[in-house]
Amino acid sequence: MRQAGRFMAEYRALRARFGFLELCKNPEAAAEVTLLPVERLGVDAAIIFADILLPVEPMGVGLEFAKGEGPVIHRPVRGAADLAGLADVDPREATPFVFEAIQKVRTALSERVPLIGFAGAPFTVASYLIEGGASREYLHTKRLMHDDPSTWHALMERLVKVTVGYVNGQIAAGAQAVQLFDSWVGTLSPADYREFVLPHTRAVVKGLTPGVPVIHFGTGTAGLLELVREAGGDVIGLDWRVDLGDAWKRLGYDVAVQGNLDPALLLAKPAEIKRHVRAILDRAAGRPGHIFNLGHGVLPETPVEHVIAMVEMVHELSRR
Amino acid sequence: MRQAGRFMAEYRALRARFGFLELCKNPEAAAEVTLLPVERLGVDAAIIFADILLPVEPMGVGLEFAKGEGPVIHRPVRGAADLAGLADVDPREATPFVFEAIQKVRTALSERVPLIGFAGAPFTVASYLIEGGASREYLHTKRLMHDDPSTWHALMERLVKVTVGYVNGQIAAGAQAVQLFDSWVGTLSPADYREFVLPHTRAVVKGLTPGVPVIHFGTGTAGLLELVREAGGDVIGLDWRVDLGDAWKRLGYDVAVQGNLDPALLLAKPAEIKRHVRAILDRAAGRPGHIFNLGHGVLPETPVEHVIAMVEMVHELSRR
Repeated sequence: MRQAGRFMAEYRALRARFGFLELCKNPEAAAEVTLLPVERLGVDAAIIFADILLPVEPMGVGLEFAKGEGPVIHRPVRGAADLAGLADVDPREATPFVFEAIQKVRTALSERVPLIGFAGAPFTVASYLIEGGASREYLHTKRLMHDDPSTWHALMERLVKVTVGYVNGQIAAGAQAVQLFDSWVGTLSPADYREFVLPHTRAVVKGLTPGVPVIHFGTGTAGLLELVREAGGDVIGLDWRVDLGDAWKRLGYDVAVQGNLDPALLLAKPAEIKRHVRAILDRAAGRPGHIFNLGHGVLPETPVEHVIAMVEMVHELSRR
Repeated sequence: MRQAGRFMAEYRALRARFGFLELCKNPEAAAEVTLLPVERLGVDAAIIFADILLPVEPMGVGLEFAKGEGPVIHRPVRGAADLAGLADVDPREATPFVFEAIQKVRTALSERVPLIGFAGAPFTVASYLIEGGASREYLHTKRLMHDDPSTWHALMERLVKVTVGYVNGQIAAGAQAVQLFDSWVGTLSPADYREFVLPHTRAVVKGLTPGVPVIHFGTGTAGLLELVREAGGDVIGLDWRVDLGDAWKRLGYDVAVQGNLDPALLLAKPAEIKRHVRAILDRAAGRPGHIFNLGHGVLPETPVEHVIAMVEMVHELSRR
């Protein structure tokens, strides 16, 4: 997950000085934000501070982060003409600031913990491009998929190319593992996932520089797990709406899993957090290949001390 | 699902004359809305027009349907004191208009199609009472559950009592099957569902007048299905985010299933709707006990002709 955010005072202080996109594009500041959770929370890995829409911004979609509203795409892609109007960009040249931030973080970390790079998976990025921002029902996305499948697949192919170049650029810059965020793919039926998404996500995974572990993340995917696995990844992300033991059994023990604490639990009392952390570790049964994590990002309302306490609990309970 | 709604011109015309709550409380008008989809869409069952918050309004929570915003609860229940302040109402006396509407519909239908009654399941009703309306993250609900479990369970027990009385009142008035809507329960982890919800939903199911089929509905429940089944019901609702064939196998063929078309598909071209309807019927494999339905309610943007066409497709393809 993005580890630094509004729940941290240090992040809020930086955001008072920089707009969100400005922060992403400033390698010094992005590196500072990336290192913050390693120092303050005690987590076992850093994840580069960036946004999944950075590699598509240069295509000319008019990306803006409106105050408190998340991303807005001013020129959404809803048909063949919109798609044809997208600029052809080289993802290895369009976002030099991300690669530079990665280099800075690697130097600063000097092997203390590994650094994870990331990108949005094609479906989730497409959903922002088509809807023009966040969505609840994904009606434009689903309509394009169902009523104009050739434009849908062409858009996804464009995104595959961009994503592969962007992630491989991160790996070349020093990312030691990469995470594909298909955050909103849980809105799809298994049949639609198989037909409209799986081949494209698989193409991304197959296109990545070999030898670097790939974490394939989604939420609301309890009905999609086998297909997500089929699409690829060394580690499959599990949100909290599925039992970790059952999910891992379904996936097979030859993939690793990541998850699966409900982020809302970090607002509860520490004793209750601990009870749930322990239950998840019990479901993982000490089997190697479980990365403890939240099922989704840290909520802005979360007390930072609870996050620190949770990291300590995981360390303490895993040592036993 | 609620079958009449903003996608129908006749419903919009009625809503121009009545506020939403006003419509629910007027037995003549509620009966008219209930009959509309039977006549206009050709569906095989009627479902009473009502709202899941009707039986809790008399408890004094200050229910209002704000224009375009859904329900608002002006005095949310967030602790023991709020709970103690709720009025003690007899659910068989508090909503006579619902029972009267049911009687009118039964008379008007005169055995053409059966009439389904419904209520919210305790978790989903509690989530509205606690959040004060619709929610995305259910943070207040989860906080009460985790930090004050005794108040949580006491609230759920109150809701069980109200729900049982309310649904049995509907059955006495003529409802021939009943549906429990646990629409938002998919926000919970399986562990939390088992501990904080399952015993209460089971108490509702066990308290209902025997001999009337119970449909147990939820969305986002792909990771909860076995537990939903354990809670009870003769028919388990499946949204679209799970494969019907896999889900039924997990549930066991001794329960019936309902679902599972993505409501967003009704915005697509009829040929694409038909392809998906056929795929769902194929997954049901002609096994008796599948009630074709959407995975959730009809979206307001849906062309009414597409709904009519879908009903025809189901009839045509099921006859084969």
